[in-house]
Amino acid sequence: MTFYQKLAQHHKKLSKLDHLEAICGWDQAAMMPEGGNTARSEAMAELAVISHELATAPYLAEWFERAERETLTAEEKASLREMKRQWQQHTVVPADLVEEKSLASSTCEHAWRSQRAQNDWPGFSENLQKVVELARREAQIRAEATGLSRYDALLDLYEPGMSTKELDALFADVKSWLPELISQIREKQTHDQIIQPVGPFPVEQQKQLSLAIMDKLGFDFNHGRLDVSAHPFCGGVPTDVRITTRYDENDFTSALMGVIHETGHARYEQGLPVKWAGLPVGKARSMGIHESQSLFFEMQLSRSEAFIGILAPLAAETFGRTDDPALTPENMTLINTRVKPGYIRVDADEVTYPAHVILRYEIERDLIEGNIEVADIPELWDKKMSEYLGLNTKGNFTDGCMQDIHWPMGSFGYFPSYTLGAMYAAQFMAAMRREMNIENLIRERNLQPIFNWLDRHVWKRGSTVSTSKVLQDATGETLNAQFFKEHLVHRYLK
Amino acid sequence: MTFYQKLAQHHKKLSKLDHLEAICGWDQAAMMPEGGNTARSEAMAELAVISHELATAPYLAEWFERAERETLTAEEKASLREMKRQWQQHTVVPADLVEEKSLASSTCEHAWRSQRAQNDWPGFSENLQKVVELARREAQIRAEATGLSRYDALLDLYEPGMSTKELDALFADVKSWLPELISQIREKQTHDQIIQPVGPFPVEQQKQLSLAIMDKLGFDFNHGRLDVSAHPFCGGVPTDVRITTRYDENDFTSALMGVIHETGHARYEQGLPVKWAGLPVGKARSMGIHESQSLFFEMQLSRSEAFIGILAPLAAETFGRTDDPALTPENMTLINTRVKPGYIRVDADEVTYPAHVILRYEIERDLIEGNIEVADIPELWDKKMSEYLGLNTKGNFTDGCMQDIHWPMGSFGYFPSYTLGAMYAAQFMAAMRREMNIENLIRERNLQPIFNWLDRHVWKRGSTVSTSKVLQDATGETLNAQFFKEHLVHRYLK
Ligand SMILES: [Zn+2]
Ligand SMILES: [Zn+2]
Repeated sequence: MTFYQKLAQHHKKLSKLDHLEAICGWDQAAMMPEGGNTARSEAMAELAVISHELATAPYLAEWFERAERETLTAEEKASLREMKRQWQQHTVVPADLVEEKSLASSTCEHAWRSQRAQNDWPGFSENLQKVVELARREAQIRAEATGLSRYDALLDLYEPGMSTKELDALFADVKSWLPELISQIREKQTHDQIIQPVGPFPVEQQKQLSLAIMDKLGFDFNHGRLDVSAHPFCGGVPTDVRITTRYDENDFTSALMGVIHETGHARYEQGLPVKWAGLPVGKARSMGIHESQSLFFEMQLSRSEAFIGILAPLAAETFGRTDDPALTPENMTLINTRVKPGYIRVDADEVTYPAHVILRYEIERDLIEGNIEVADIPELWDKKMSEYLGLNTKGNFTDGCMQDIHWPMGSFGYFPSYTLGAMYAAQFMAAMRREMNIENLIRERNLQPIFNWLDRHVWKRGSTVSTSKVLQDATGETLNAQFFKEHLVHRYLK
Repeated sequence: MTFYQKLAQHHKKLSKLDHLEAICGWDQAAMMPEGGNTARSEAMAELAVISHELATAPYLAEWFERAERETLTAEEKASLREMKRQWQQHTVVPADLVEEKSLASSTCEHAWRSQRAQNDWPGFSENLQKVVELARREAQIRAEATGLSRYDALLDLYEPGMSTKELDALFADVKSWLPELISQIREKQTHDQIIQPVGPFPVEQQKQLSLAIMDKLGFDFNHGRLDVSAHPFCGGVPTDVRITTRYDENDFTSALMGVIHETGHARYEQGLPVKWAGLPVGKARSMGIHESQSLFFEMQLSRSEAFIGILAPLAAETFGRTDDPALTPENMTLINTRVKPGYIRVDADEVTYPAHVILRYEIERDLIEGNIEVADIPELWDKKMSEYLGLNTKGNFTDGCMQDIHWPMGSFGYFPSYTLGAMYAAQFMAAMRREMNIENLIRERNLQPIFNWLDRHVWKRGSTVSTSKVLQDATGETLNAQFFKEHLVHRYLK
């Protein structure tokens, strides 16, 4: 057996442990009764220890060295590169720092759940300070190992190849036109007459509607399921993708759009190259690309007028409300394209969303690089919210800088993925439009060519090439924020 | 840390892996879509390898030796004894035999699924021959290690302390009165006028009824769930017990009685001593004791006239059939105490069930001891079925010696547990009756004293003492088949 083969075997073993982790984690969120939590958490912590030991086994250094001297095909070289990237990410941070970080962030996150409700910034910031210190230490170590800046070294965990330099340029561009765009759209939408749908929309019918839409969107039910959890997510494994939602009997659109979003994530996972199953090169390319698929399904496809022309009658029929004026395609389009600046990122529409992300990016970048401190966050938050969205958040920590789980969890460098995903999705759609008439395909209920395009250009590539190569090959150029802007202008101002 | 403590820590770690196995196994049976099976089986096989390596780690031999020389409390001694028992069972059989056995039985079991339907004894017996040979080799190795006979060495895996000698005596006793008892009951029941309930009984209502009964039977929903699977079972872990059932819209009693049965298993698991969580001494004592709890709930409790007086109106109300003459307590009692010899063990009533078990026990005992061969099974089966139940099974392998999964799976020594369970249950009930008026308690809907008795005498003992000590302490004597006979006579002939 060659060293490359030994490494491949080793990583397939690791991926089997990931499989167990994914299923038990899904179960914990979607199935487990509360009383099972302590023992489950302990069992999963044990699994994490075993996985970590395997992922950082001392013999791997030599294996990588030897494998790199073997004669490999181009594909095997890509596979080796991804295995090594994963291994380096695992090994570079000392075990005691990993443990300290996990302890500090679980303490911070746990306390945050009640502190947020109590608007308790002083209490929260004390814990967050500790989390930030450890994240800085981690960033420093990763920076030294990779030659990247500290923030870039964290960003690289989620969006390999992306940099502060590129993000600064992209986001400066967005900031130059977004506030004006938002006010133009707000102006244009002033006189829209929206009819709010009035519940109840029974959970069982919402579930039927969700399953019907998933089916139309090509979700493979032989390799996945839909269930319920407090916080919707896409989990499981490529051969068995578990997506979740949360139903609100007063508002069916939030669950529906959530399901469509997770279906985008799911199809990416279900479409990953089987040939590379269990190997890092066969995994999703990045968090941004992952989000591009969910946002392609949710924003590019499903909030389009053409697609709402399918969704609205299906919903009306499922709820037995074919006469309800709130469920006409016209009214559903108004609802699903409504733009309104708000405090909460997860409730934001696609136009104002980037403002939420840029604000967080700018703060966490400076925090990790050591240019600002935790104590500076509220003032910066208020200033940027006012500047980007015209909202006053002073003194409101609950709906301000304490609203997200990312920082208490110690996940710095993740936020940009959301807006990168939106931009990738717009760029993919623009390229696709050069090859086919999307609106016609939707009207003909023939989505297959769209899925085939994504499968060929995104899903089946796994991590065989870099993100910019995916973009380049699929769209003819690297990331260009112009496509996102054009999408927004076209949808909201035409 | 003492060596006893090191061993305890080691076994708690093993139990965390068992936790993952239990949840992923439950998921595979109750949740997983078909297409997820290959990757799941591979992931679980990997987990089994890791567990096996840990359970048979070379350093354990010395740890046990050193721990046995430490000063331990009586409880710790029991705990050490059970850890050692488990360790010896794991280590005594060489890894290559384990693998060969697992391969042969999975081949045999897989083929059996279609061979059974095709009544293909020649095809099946060829595979079974291989499984039996390997089981004999395993039995030989275990016999040498334990000083037991070959069959007893396998029996010991499921029912520690039980022996062929004791079983032969018990079953000879049963055989001396069972056929006559069956014919007396059949005679007595000849003129019973049973009204068969006519479906449909909607699945959703059956589920509501199941949950209501589980609640009455004290199932702790904070530490468990009810779901659906093709073959009902009780799985999960003590802090999160997963029971399953299967609904038939034409017949609600089978799912209902199945749920009650699994609830008995579940309450045993939920009631195990928390103090010993994760250690072998904190686990269920034996398969027979486990079955005694499910049969206590199903047979002793729920098929009693008093309990059916609760069940029947609850069912009638749940199905909106308070006027249905099939759902009166009287008719439901007739249905749930109907005795009729049949071919299929899993469909048998509690009176004829022991005949099915004794027949299998006698055959597998002689098979493992080498007194008969696979080719002899059909003739022996036919002879015993005719002798014990007066049924002709000649040429009908499907409903004869090919009906159970146990032999194709290589599980020899398991069958006696079913009837031991029925006997333990009857003996527990007889002892309980000396302390309280069961019928009155049921009529008063006050089951707590019954559960408290089981909790104190069975559940909370875990594996701290032997099965005969459990019996002795709870009932004043060791296993005595007389209680089972008296139960049957009292229920069916009085
Ligand atoms: Zn997403
Ligand atoms: Zn059972």
